[in-house]
Parts: sequence; structure tokens; C-alpha cells
Amino acid sequence: MPARHEARKGRDGCRLLEAWHDQQVTLADLRTPAVLVDKARLLRNIDRMQAAADARGIRLRPHAKTHKSPVIARWQIDRGAVGICCAKLGEAEVFANAGIEDIRLPYPLNPSNADRLIALAARTHISFIVDHIGVANAWSRALAAAGVTIDVLVKVDVGFHRCGIDPDLATAVLFVQHIAALPALRLRGLLSHAGQSYHAASEVHLQEMASAEAHTLTALAAAARAGGVTIDELSAGATPTARFSLRQDGLTEYRPGNFVYFDRTQVGLGAATLDECALTVLARVVSKPAPDRVILDAGSKTLSSDGARGFQPIAGYGTVLDDDDLVIERLSEEHATVRVTRGETAKEPGDLVRILPNHACVVSNLVDQAWLVEGEEVSALPIAARGRIS
Amino acid sequence: MPARHEARKGRDGCRLLEAWHDQQVTLADLRTPAVLVDKARLLRNIDRMQAAADARGIRLRPHAKTHKSPVIARWQIDRGAVGICCAKLGEAEVFANAGIEDIRLPYPLNPSNADRLIALAARTHISFIVDHIGVANAWSRALAAAGVTIDVLVKVDVGFHRCGIDPDLATAVLFVQHIAALPALRLRGLLSHAGQSYHAASEVHLQEMASAEAHTLTALAAAARAGGVTIDELSAGATPTARFSLRQDGLTEYRPGNFVYFDRTQVGLGAATLDECALTVLARVVSKPAPDRVILDAGSKTLSSDGARGFQPIAGYGTVLDDDDLVIERLSEEHATVRVTRGETAKEPGDLVRILPNHACVVSNLVDQAWLVEGEEVSALPIAARGRIS
Repeated sequence: MPARHEARKGRDGCRLLEAWHDQQVTLADLRTPAVLVDKARLLRNIDRMQAAADARGIRLRPHAKTHKSPVIARWQIDRGAVGICCAKLGEAEVFANAGIEDIRLPYPLNPSNADRLIALAARTHISFIVDHIGVANAWSRALAAAGVTIDVLVKVDVGFHRCGIDPDLATAVLFVQHIAALPALRLRGLLSHAGQSYHAASEVHLQEMASAEAHTLTALAAAARAGGVTIDELSAGATPTARFSLRQDGLTEYRPGNFVYFDRTQVGLGAATLDECALTVLARVVSKPAPDRVILDAGSKTLSSDGARGFQPIAGYGTVLDDDDLVIERLSEEHATVRVTRGETAKEPGDLVRILPNHACVVSNLVDQAWLVEGEEVSALPIAARGRIS
Repeated sequence: MPARHEARKGRDGCRLLEAWHDQQVTLADLRTPAVLVDKARLLRNIDRMQAAADARGIRLRPHAKTHKSPVIARWQIDRGAVGICCAKLGEAEVFANAGIEDIRLPYPLNPSNADRLIALAARTHISFIVDHIGVANAWSRALAAAGVTIDVLVKVDVGFHRCGIDPDLATAVLFVQHIAALPALRLRGLLSHAGQSYHAASEVHLQEMASAEAHTLTALAAAARAGGVTIDELSAGATPTARFSLRQDGLTEYRPGNFVYFDRTQVGLGAATLDECALTVLARVVSKPAPDRVILDAGSKTLSSDGARGFQPIAGYGTVLDDDDLVIERLSEEHATVRVTRGETAKEPGDLVRILPNHACVVSNLVDQAWLVEGEEVSALPIAARGRIS
């Protein structure tokens, strides 16, 4: 099949799709390593989170950082999401170009990018966060000068100690009041991310984090309202806490990202089962230097160096599915060194394995395209917003 | 300057170069984060390694995995390199398309990719490694069937315990003899990579590793020659050991990669000074949630999660240059959380910082283009072989 063959050498998703228009590609045709997305699991994950949010009347706004794909963003919106989140303007530009009409950036944008935000605001409903007086004032000046008003939310630190105002400070309400009074910024409400949930020690711990987060947001919102500020939105979001946060009172929006794919870390944190994980890496044994050691063709350029998190310590750079005796003990950029925990392995060069990565979001960011899998059939899934770091 | 402005939004290096043809771009024009390559340092690093190899009559064949750029490969060859190395066929395809005429793949290619290797052999001088009897036999059959003969080297494990035959086994010479006798594979010699050097504890330790590697290769070559095999090449290569390996007797080729840029790990291993490091990340402070904490806009999507290595333990995800009090203590995908070791920091949102990353090779792989810097002027450096994982 020369036509398929030629297409297979291309790296561009669109070209691949075009070349394969009338052909069926199967798993067996893929070069390795390859990033696979199980379409049925993906859609089930989307539907389950949407249903959980709908049941509580909470608007779901998935973070697109996990998939970086307008195709999947569209599926999320078609299934009930009110829009998406991106981290960087470069990502928002890709999704806006693809027709996504409501994009929130829970990221402390710097006013040096005012021109890009203003351009985006002309073609999509865009919103972002503020957590610093000087930055907020500069944004207000820049947007007012351009005659543009943009929705903002105040980022509240609920324990991750990354961005966000400290809600325990006496100045927290003053900060919210200050933002509400700034020209060209339309204050929508408060926003948080319980990133500390990735370091949770137990289910109970996660539950406490979710409860504390909701309590912090509702308390600050009450104080701000008492201070004369209108707070319409209380937005939280993180996949590990999602199952507990969606039971809290007061939240109006939830913004999980990883749940579309899940990964080894989410399994370790009780957020998913192995059977719910939609993204895997197809890799091939390329060497067997010893009976208890094989080398795979997927290294840190495919799996990343991110470790796994969970209630228990988790060793290795991913789970080799269907072979509990294999441990991915070391990654080079293009090699995985895999050891057998006892005895010898039956794996030989040429054999294929499936790996559940520690962190799905960063795997998406390492390839120009993944492959959507339905049974044995595959189709190209371009990762259009990959690598948009600015 | 609307034209420059428009171009700045593009992500494609060629488009940027075209749009900026008659304009001067400066550091101040760049969106952050941005990957910067100091051109003068880069060329000095290339020249210094080339001179060290030339002085010993050792052929230099840099590994292109660090820069993934045909532009830089061409500079290396113009300055004396005999060719380049790549890990994956997808990378070799990019460099062959760019006119690089001698490409070695020190990677245990699987015969499932025979079609691609055969196609490459028609347009560049290609060679690769073997370390497994079954794989070598399959390659021999596939290449013989296509009427193609390809240069190979036997990969020897010199202590990294990743790929390679065990040189201490009685079967090592038999393996080399077997390869030498296979149709369609032209045995050139032996090849090693002292990857264990990244875990060296001292200069003396590095020196011992370099000496042991050369001894292992020359001893196995002598035994193979005594067994009737012609061994023309003994190829080693790793940046940490380079300064010691290039003093050893017997090597014919050296294949370092990282030395073009160097990084925090190479400084930690005594292979470079801070002033020799050519690749840095330009990042911006985007939040200051506390007097002792600032947030930068460069996260693991720009710096990677790779830790630093060195003779002493090294904390953090990169060195903030020109500010010894700042420690990059945590990375999220799009944030660096930076702490002050004592007191408060004067850094404020909007301020720019330069970061020396822990591992330059993986930073190259995260962006479609870097920026070549000469003084305050910058020009686009497309990273054409980025993300070629298969």
C-alpha cells in the first residue's frame, strides 16, 4: 500500500487525515512509539464528569491543557461544557481559531501581552485571573486605553501556595473590592485550584481539601458581598478533588482537566481505575541485553520525566499494562530501561507493549499528534495547541 | 510596527524569518517564555570540542539530539565534524532532507522500520548499531532482500547497563564475529556510550569511567581482530567524560551531544562553566503572591521536569542567573514557583529573568523554535527535528 505508506511518514495530522481519507488504518500500521487515545473511554470520561456537574447544577469548564485538541474541546462543549480553560494566550489563540467561543485563562497574564488579549477578545469570550494589585492596575489601564472590557476573576490561594491572594489576610476583601472598582475589568467572582490535592495522603485528606476549598471561597465571597461587591461565580477545579468538590455547596463552576484521559497518578489518587484511563503509549521492545532487562523505544521524549503521585509511593515512569512483573526503572530521552521484578521476561525485541504514563497532560505536549483508537482502527488526532508556551 | 507585531504571533520559524527579513528583532521584542541560544558561546563550544578531537586525530561526530537543528548540524560539519548522530529514524529523515550526508544512529533500530532505513540509505550515508542476535539476523535478511548493505557497529555496554552486549561474556567476541559474517551488514567496529558518567561522584570517577570505557573497547577490538574480524572504528561519546576520553588511546570517533549548549548538569559535573552555557530560558515574573515568592511563566512545558545531576546534590529546576537567592523549587506545567532563600526578593511582576535549565536537550525538544542571540539582536532558530520520536 504505497499511498498509506507515504502518508505514514508524514508528521502532520491534517496531511495524514487527507491521505488516509479512504483507507482504514489499524494499530498494526503505527510506527512506535505512538500516543494512543481510546475514544470510547475518552467519551465516557467526558460524559461522567459532565453528568456529575449537571446533577449539582455546576457549570463544567474543562481545562484543555490535558488534550490541547480543538477536536476534543468541541466534544466536551457538545456534551454540555460551557467553554474551556487554557493556561497561555498561545493556546487560547489556537482554540479561538478553531471556533471555541468561551475561553477562560486561569493564569496570571502579564500586561506585556495586552495586544494579544485584546485581539482575542474581538473573536471569543475571554476571561482571566488577577492576584496582584500592580498587575491588575496595569491591565485596567491597558484595556481601558483600548476601549475593551474583559471578565476577570480573583485568584484565591486555597493551599497550593502557587498563585493567588491569601484569603486569610485582612486585605483579601480589600483586594476584591479594588478589582471590582477598576475600569475595564468586569469582576465575575473568585477562582481557585487545589493543586495540593496531588500531594494528598488519603481519600479523607482529599475530601478535607475539597471541603476547605469550597469553604474558603464561599467565606471570602460572603465577606466581599458584605463589602458591596457582586460575586456571581465561584470557580474551582482539579481532577483529584472533583468527586468531592462536586458535592460541596456554593460552587458555580468546575474546571478539571486531566479527567478526559486520566493517568497513573489519578489512579494512585483514587480518581480513576486502570480501565478508565484513555491515554496510553504504544511502545516496542528494541533490545534485550539481559534476560531480566528489555529496552523500549519510548523515553522521556514520549513519557516525560514526571514521577507518579498517589496515596502510596509509586516507583517507575509508567505502568506496563498486562505485565505486572515489568518496572520502567529508568528513562533516557529515547529509551526506557525495563527490569523484571523476579525471574526473566518473555518479552523479545519487536514485541509491543502498552504503557500507562504517570502524567497524561505532558505526554500530549510531547507529540504533534496522537491516535484515536476505536477497536483496531485508528485515526489521527492532531494536538494543535501543543507547545504553545507563551 | 504592525508587520513585526503580526509576525511575532506566528509560531513557524520560516514564516518568522520571512516576515522579519528586513527588520531587526531584539530581545525586548520576544514573548516569554522563550528559549535563547547565545550564538557566540555556541560556536566557541563547537570549536573547542572540535579542536580537542582534532588534536588527537579523533573524528568528531556530534549527537544532534541536543539541538535537533539542521542549521547547527551544518555549522558543526563546516567546522570539522565528520557527520552527526541521531537517535531515531524520524530525526535522521529531517537531517537527510536538510542535506546532511553522514548520519549515524547509535540506537538499536527495530527491523519493523526497514523500509524507512532503506529509503534513507538511498540519500545519505547511514549507519546504526546492533546488540542482539535475533535483531541483527532480521536486519540482515531485510536488507539483503532489498539489495542494500548498511554500515553497522556493535554496541558495547561499558557500564550504563542500558543497551549493548556485555563485553565480559565469553560470547562477546562470538557476537562480533557473527555480525561480521552477516550479509548486507558491513561491520565497521565497536561503539559505546558511558551514560553512567551522569552519575559520577567526582572528577576522578569520571576519569576512571573514561579510561575503563576505552580499555573495554580496545580489549574487545583486539580479541575480535585476533578472531579474524576487521575493526576499523572504536566510537565513544558523552559530554561529561569528553575531556578525559579524548586523551585515551585507541578511539577513532567521539560523539558528544550536549556540549553545544551545556547546561546546569554539565556545570555540576565539571564539564562546563556557567559562562560557557549557551542555552537559557527567558522568563517573566507573572505574580508575587508573597514577599519571598514569585511565579515565573516558564514551567515544565519549557524547562522539563528533569532534575540536575552533579558531583554534589543540586536542588531545583534550573538556576536563575544573576540572582543567587532565588530557588526554583517547584514546576507546574506553566508556572515556576520561585522562593527566596533568605529575606525578600526585589523581583516584581513584569521583570525578566534568565534561567539555566537542568537539561538543555529536553528543553530543545519542547519548543518549535529557539532564538539565536547576538548581543541584543535575535533571529529565529527552527528546531526542525523536535518531537521526532519514532
